[in-house]
Amino acid sequence: MICPVLDLAQQLIRRPSLSPDDAGCQEILIARLKAIGFHIEPMNFGDTLNFWATRGEGKTLAFAGHTDVVPTGDPTLWITPPFEPALRDGMLFGRGAADMKGSLASMVVAAERFVAANPNHQGRLAFLITSDEEASAVNGTVKVVEALMARNERMDYCLVGEPSSTTRVGDIVKNGRRGSMTANLQIHGVQGHVAYPHLADNPVHRAMPALNELVSIEWDQGNEFFPPTSMQIANINAGTGSNNVIPGELYVQFNFRFSTELTDATIKERVKALLDKHQLNYTLNWVVSGQPFLTPRGSLVDAVINAVQHYSEITPDLQTTGGTSDGRFIALMGAQVVELGPVNASIHKINECVQASDLQLLARMYQRIMEQLVG
Amino acid sequence: MICPVLDLAQQLIRRPSLSPDDAGCQEILIARLKAIGFHIEPMNFGDTLNFWATRGEGKTLAFAGHTDVVPTGDPTLWITPPFEPALRDGMLFGRGAADMKGSLASMVVAAERFVAANPNHQGRLAFLITSDEEASAVNGTVKVVEALMARNERMDYCLVGEPSSTTRVGDIVKNGRRGSMTANLQIHGVQGHVAYPHLADNPVHRAMPALNELVSIEWDQGNEFFPPTSMQIANINAGTGSNNVIPGELYVQFNFRFSTELTDATIKERVKALLDKHQLNYTLNWVVSGQPFLTPRGSLVDAVINAVQHYSEITPDLQTTGGTSDGRFIALMGAQVVELGPVNASIHKINECVQASDLQLLARMYQRIMEQLVG
Repeated sequence: MICPVLDLAQQLIRRPSLSPDDAGCQEILIARLKAIGFHIEPMNFGDTLNFWATRGEGKTLAFAGHTDVVPTGDPTLWITPPFEPALRDGMLFGRGAADMKGSLASMVVAAERFVAANPNHQGRLAFLITSDEEASAVNGTVKVVEALMARNERMDYCLVGEPSSTTRVGDIVKNGRRGSMTANLQIHGVQGHVAYPHLADNPVHRAMPALNELVSIEWDQGNEFFPPTSMQIANINAGTGSNNVIPGELYVQFNFRFSTELTDATIKERVKALLDKHQLNYTLNWVVSGQPFLTPRGSLVDAVINAVQHYSEITPDLQTTGGTSDGRFIALMGAQVVELGPVNASIHKINECVQASDLQLLARMYQRIMEQLVG
Repeated sequence: MICPVLDLAQQLIRRPSLSPDDAGCQEILIARLKAIGFHIEPMNFGDTLNFWATRGEGKTLAFAGHTDVVPTGDPTLWITPPFEPALRDGMLFGRGAADMKGSLASMVVAAERFVAANPNHQGRLAFLITSDEEASAVNGTVKVVEALMARNERMDYCLVGEPSSTTRVGDIVKNGRRGSMTANLQIHGVQGHVAYPHLADNPVHRAMPALNELVSIEWDQGNEFFPPTSMQIANINAGTGSNNVIPGELYVQFNFRFSTELTDATIKERVKALLDKHQLNYTLNWVVSGQPFLTPRGSLVDAVINAVQHYSEITPDLQTTGGTSDGRFIALMGAQVVELGPVNASIHKINECVQASDLQLLARMYQRIMEQLVG
């Protein structure tokens, strides 16, 4: 008889839910949660399906996740068609196995077991599920969070099922994320012929001392939870393609991943001061895609560590590195937010897979977290 | 009765000789030169028509020029169709009027008058005419010069009819040109995600100190005849377009216009030393498009100055600035090379034009140069 976690994970993988298409996944999850007494509230926005499910009252522990997956790449390169899950040598293969239909299955089965054991649990157990985390994400978790905040919905703890682990399930737990912001900088000069440089003003030359200083800045040293803030020039472009034309404009795009030692306002000020000091003629636009957030040691982190230690006999590293996740939106509710999920080695790749036993372990860990916080 | 210079200039302008198409221009010039006893040698290469014409023996003064013109742009923007020459308010309009069918007409009429007055002139008078100076120029003057050098053809003086003047004919005479060379530099790094900079190696960051040093170098201070060597970054490109990807490669293209204080070898050495000092992983390719050349005071320069002073009562400035011309190839023959032609304000533009009286003046100046050097 197949394990209920793997059975549910496979049901979900069979739905080709390319962002923001849910492809029927949420219907399955909703049916399972309804069956164990959850109150379900669909919160769809635009092309994105979301739902908020709650059971009980009081202090609230929410599990958050997404049903959408990234594209498969060439499906013929997979050892099994990407939407036809296959178990081989203890590994479950399929698009979404690790990111994050496996986690969703573990969460729901954990809730079923928890409710069966604690039908009258003390706090409130909740689910916040979206069908767009991987693509634009504009109509997903951020909109649900806005709506929940608008009506003062309570959320104390949030466990995001993103694949946080690197070699063993639970070896890494994310207890925060760096902020992310992007500068679009245009440096203005005067175009001309290379034979007559005195009639032109080369913005590349003009910008060089400032850019050289920019790349050498130590923005901060990080802190106990965050690595140092990192700035990376992602794109730089100037020129007409001809070797005898001095360009009139230089475009530079750079991205910051920043710690809680800085704010977006501080970074903006420092960059502006640098450009002004070098007397550049420029246009600068900023896009802030996420503020940094941090969940220090406390009830949620302690419960997560306890659960990992109990089932895998390792102590997780708390980390705040890596890309952004929906945790950045949920943190705005004031909730403690932690990410614990399967091993992420194969995510977004051909032959995405997860160890079947890891999903079973994860379901146990999730259940133990429920027991500690709302049991 | 129309002036023979303007008549010939208009005949040439009527031929739409877009590079490398001669469109019948050389046929006209050859007929005129043959009629006054020139020996004509067609020296066509590939798609390009060239000829070498000589009259007499001994010390050789060659007139050099091209029959091809640059494209017209939108012909409806012209006050006269670009290949239908028109005289208005003393100006001759048409594509090539200034660059350089006007000069060709002045040269040929000057030769006619000179030969009529000096049928048994002492030295040798020559013409080196090509139909591709404006485009790739690979089958033009450079090939003719190679062929002439291969058989030790003599050339002592060369007068190039490029439009050298800025406000009055003869106010500027070019007695040299800077060298031109282009570096194509690829700086190698390792692509990655901006969230994981320690796994990548950003070539833009890596290159910044070297590029900053490169743009601040004083290459030389020029000399009596040359402005300081100038280096300009013409193109710089890195990035995938995405704001979260660290680029793997940086491409920088920069061009030198260099004086006779430097050689291409010295510049290559200095750039290599700079890149190596900064320990960059790079690929560097050079294209040398022209060596600098200089014709100091001497018989040719003196004759040109005398001719300008005689007919326009101004003393020309000797300059080596501006773009490249076929003079760079002819200088390889060891000849003294000077450029004297009409006002260049309208060249390569809509409504290209030249003052009609300037062409007449130019024919007189050219004739006086002939008289002084091979009379």
